Order: sequence, then structure tokens, then C-alpha cells
Amino acid sequence: MIQTPYLLFLGDAPDSLAAKVAQGIKDWRPENAVGQFRLPDCKADVGLKDMTLEEAKAAGAKTVVIGVANRGGYISDAWKDVLIEALRMGFDLASGLHNLLRDENDLVSAARVAGRTLHDVRIPSVAYPIANGKKRSGKRCLAVGTDCSVGKMYTGLAMDAEMRERGMKSTFRPTGQTGILITGGGVPLDAVIADFMAGAVEYLTPDNDADHWDHIEGQGSLFHVSYSGVTMALIHGGQPDALILSHEPTRPHMRGLPDYQQPSLEALRDMALSLAHIANPDCVIAGISVNTQHHTEDEAKAYLAEVEERMGLPTVDPFRHGAGRLVDALDAI
Amino acid sequence: MIQTPYLLFLGDAPDSLAAKVAQGIKDWRPENAVGQFRLPDCKADVGLKDMTLEEAKAAGAKTVVIGVANRGGYISDAWKDVLIEALRMGFDLASGLHNLLRDENDLVSAARVAGRTLHDVRIPSVAYPIANGKKRSGKRCLAVGTDCSVGKMYTGLAMDAEMRERGMKSTFRPTGQTGILITGGGVPLDAVIADFMAGAVEYLTPDNDADHWDHIEGQGSLFHVSYSGVTMALIHGGQPDALILSHEPTRPHMRGLPDYQQPSLEALRDMALSLAHIANPDCVIAGISVNTQHHTEDEAKAYLAEVEERMGLPTVDPFRHGAGRLVDALDAI
Repeated sequence: MIQTPYLLFLGDAPDSLAAKVAQGIKDWRPENAVGQFRLPDCKADVGLKDMTLEEAKAAGAKTVVIGVANRGGYISDAWKDVLIEALRMGFDLASGLHNLLRDENDLVSAARVAGRTLHDVRIPSVAYPIANGKKRSGKRCLAVGTDCSVGKMYTGLAMDAEMRERGMKSTFRPTGQTGILITGGGVPLDAVIADFMAGAVEYLTPDNDADHWDHIEGQGSLFHVSYSGVTMALIHGGQPDALILSHEPTRPHMRGLPDYQQPSLEALRDMALSLAHIANPDCVIAGISVNTQHHTEDEAKAYLAEVEERMGLPTVDPFRHGAGRLVDALDAI
Repeated sequence: MIQTPYLLFLGDAPDSLAAKVAQGIKDWRPENAVGQFRLPDCKADVGLKDMTLEEAKAAGAKTVVIGVANRGGYISDAWKDVLIEALRMGFDLASGLHNLLRDENDLVSAARVAGRTLHDVRIPSVAYPIANGKKRSGKRCLAVGTDCSVGKMYTGLAMDAEMRERGMKSTFRPTGQTGILITGGGVPLDAVIADFMAGAVEYLTPDNDADHWDHIEGQGSLFHVSYSGVTMALIHGGQPDALILSHEPTRPHMRGLPDYQQPSLEALRDMALSLAHIANPDCVIAGISVNTQHHTEDEAKAYLAEVEERMGLPTVDPFRHGAGRLVDALDAI
């Protein structure tokens, strides 16, 4: 686990999109961040107090989290100056960047001298077991998508937040680097060795109270040929009690695959449920989450109503209208 | 690729089962092996000429292949003496053992001094791409099982051998360490990083002549929750034109999973074909391969006839009766 709270490093972010990891932490775990650190030419602002390293230290921050994508695929000297000073002052560092902190000799030696930890959350830090398929106590929900990047992480975080607001027992279980940085722990599933994927998901979602819900972050899509094996491992390792179908209705084709069309929600429902029943015969489809970001409010409402009528399942855009109706559906299981 | 031909190292194998890798090479690629090397207390014999290292060298062998499982999870001094001498004499070494040749300092330094290569075929040696899903030329066949270890590799090898005997264009494409040692190359799919599994299968089965068949070695099972993600990557990365259903009818439960029953052949057919159609809408089920090793000849014949009648597909045990009818079915596609 990464030590919280964080100071969020926004660096020289060219725009707010580049700081989406920091924004995710601010949106979903504001208690995990005491402030933000920005270099002079930073164009992003996640709305936290700007702090120096000294101020963050005084406010109790334990880890500097790189909350911004880097440019050019390397860690610049301007970043290094701050990160090395942070290590000297006793902060750990955490990053989801493709280029690893551990591959930077100056960061490694500064961390060693200061006795601090470098967290590269893209890389597994655990030797996961092979899945044993044993039934675990507690309840699990997994979002499965018609495509990649349709809002599965957001849906899981929104259901978790709603449950906790209601006083229900709930945990978000991250399977990608952004989710791991938001909560401080998880499994970087796309970087796990094939034989251990399902076992990593079992490890991530252990036995729990009978009325506790794990919201497992979805990855890929059963219909996306590049990543479907990862999705499969989530369904069989997660042994979900409930699936949420996730969809973005304006895609011209599968993400990155111009020759592949998105499946219908009906096709996703039938395929995902058949596969889920192998690991959990009681699994049900609880609802549908639609990403309506490219629709006006009227268009979104009309589309959601049409899908709800057609599929006979509660259908919402959790970003626009909240995850309340999805949580109602889970609570009734 | 591993340099052929081989000298097969049988070591101090306690029985013939321990030498099944060597037996597989002898059975399927006898032209790849000039002889066998046995220590004094070896209880296995794959029926090749016993040779010293010197005799094997004179016969043209390029690589000493460890064709036997080791005991106790370590490489013994008795083995090391032979292997180090082999490196000094100019042989490469190849192994599918769990403990890696490259982790043995004395083998590494002997290989370096002699300028030879250590092949650990359990570990990928290539940075595989992410799958792009593009349609490839040539034809591909994949065996999918009701369970793990039901005879998928054997089925693929038998179909490949039959096609080559008929003068058809055919290649066996290994995805596990035994298959890789038999043919000299392939992808150790269970050791590939999750995001690159389907891409590794695309890499393994590139564009080919329109009338060429790749027989892709199957792994795991869609119904085995520990490994189903690997099977999924084979179906979507392999984009097979034909599937063979593979089955072993006497299992009391899924291999290693006492709480899971084997699926019916009908359930396997429907699930596998639906998933295969995502990558290749023209994929068909070509036939059924049954492992009848626990049946008498009469029982086997009766069972095969019953399944063939029920499923409406050519149903054979390729070990007992040859793969001819499966190849007939593929040739008609």
C-alpha cells in the first residue's frame, strides 16, 4: 500500500487532461491529498491548495504522487529536482508512468540514501497465486464494457462512493494504475503474467462480510480482441454476484480496431452472463451504465430511457445523474 | 529458434513419464534428434541411439535438450557435469524446466566462455506487440477443451503430421514449453504479460499462403477459471477458421478445481464459437477429439459413435485412430 495522504505533483502539465490522475484522486479520495505542487508553467489546477514540499510535510503528507502524464517519454530535470528533494525530505514517491521511477538511477540512489520507497504502480509488486476458484464470502460487482475506456472505472468508483454515503460496506478494488493511485493499492492487471491473472483478482478481492460489496474495476472488453483475456480473468477471478453493462454509444468502431464494430448491449449481456455463471451461477446483470458525454442533456435522457425500456434494466449515466439507481439494484440482490 | 538437431538429455529419469518431453520430440519430430544421453541410473528410454556427447557432436547435433523433469526443484551436480561439458564442446542448451538455466551461475559462465546460448523456453524471449486484430491470410485451427490437459497439443500435432503426410501445407504452432522444444520455436503463452497475450498469438501465426494451415496449440479451457484468460487470448489472437472440441470423458471435476464440473460438449461448442466469431465470423467447429485412454477399445468406439451421433461432427481419438477424419473436415472448409 502507498502511504497516504499525498501531495499531488502536477509538474508542468500542459492542460488539465494531462493531470487526470491527480483529478481522479481529488474527485474520489479528497481525504487522500493535502494539496497540489505545480511548477511555474503548469496549466492544470485540480482545485487543491498549492503547497511547497515544506508546507505539505507540515500538513502531514507522506507520499508525493505524480498525478500528471509526462511528455516525450522521459522524466525531465525540472521534475527530478523536485522529486529528489522530496525523497531527501522523507517523502515516498508513487507513479503510474510508463517509464519507471526505479529505472532512474538518481531517484534510486536518493531513495536509498533517504530510506524511502519508490512505488511504480504499473508493475506488480506481489507474486500472485494461481486462482483456486473457491467461493469467497461477501459480494462483488464488476462492470463489463462493450468496448475499452467506456467508463467502467468511473462507474465502480461512483457506486462505491454512493454505498459509503449510505453507510453500506463497500470497497473499490482497482485493477489499473489510475485506480491504484486513487485508493493507494490494487493490482495492475494488464502487467500480470498470464497464468496468474485470475489469481491476482482473487487476491485483490478476498473473503469479506456477507453484506460487504467489492466494486472491482473492469478492464478491456470481452469483444476487444487485444485485451479480452484480461476481461475474462476479471470475470472468472472476480466471481461477481452482479455485472454492470457499460457502454459509450457514439463509437464508430472498437477502440483502436477500425475493422471491429461494437457489440450490442444484448450481445454483451448474453456473453458476459454465460461466462460469469461458470464461476458464480447466481450472478445477475444489475444495471447499465452509459457514458453520455457526447450527448446533450435531452439526448442523454432520451437515450437512457430507450435503453432502459429495451433492456429492462436500470440505465443511468453515473457521471451525469449519479449511481443511486445502480446501488438500489445491487442492494436488492 | 533453437538450433536442431538435438541430443536428448534423459538424465537420471526415474521412469518413462518423467521423460515425456524427450518422448514427444522422438514421436513428433524424430528428424530433430540424433540420439539420447542417459546417466547410469536412468529408467527411461525413448528408443533413440544412446550417444556420448562426442558421438552426438560427430552426428551433427547442435543443442542438448533437457528432455526430462528434474526432481526436487533443482539442477543436480550430476546433470551439471554433463551440461557444462556440453557447453564447452560447443552445444547450446535448451530447457523447459521451472528453474531456469540462466539462474545457474556455473552454466551461465560456461556458456559465456564458450559463446553458446541457454534457451529457457518457459520465458518469453521476444517483446510481443499488442494485438491489432487485422485479418491474416492462410487458415488456422485451434483445439479448445472442456478442461485443461485433455489432449489439445496431441490433437494439433496429429493433424499437422497427417496434413504433411498428405502433402498439404501445414505448421504446428506451439504455445507451451513441450511444444516449443518439439519444434524448436513458439510462444510460452502462460508466461506472457497479460496485455500482450493476444499479440503474442498474432506474432506466432503470421500471414501465410491461402491454402496453408496453422495448428495452434491450445491452452487451458474457457471453463477453467484459473486459465480461461489464456484460452480467450488464443481464440481472439488466433482468429481461427476452425475449432476442434477436445474432451476427456472420465474426469470427476475440472482439473485442480474440485468444486467445478466439466461442461458438456454442447456448452463448449456454443461458448467457443460465439467468442471465435468476434475475431472471425466464418469460424466453424470442424470436429471433436476425445482422449479415450481410460476406455477399452470397445468402450472407446461406442463412446465416439455416441458423441458423433449426438453432436453431428466427426469424432475421433487421434491417438488411437489417427487424425485423418479431422483433417478431412478441415480440408473441406
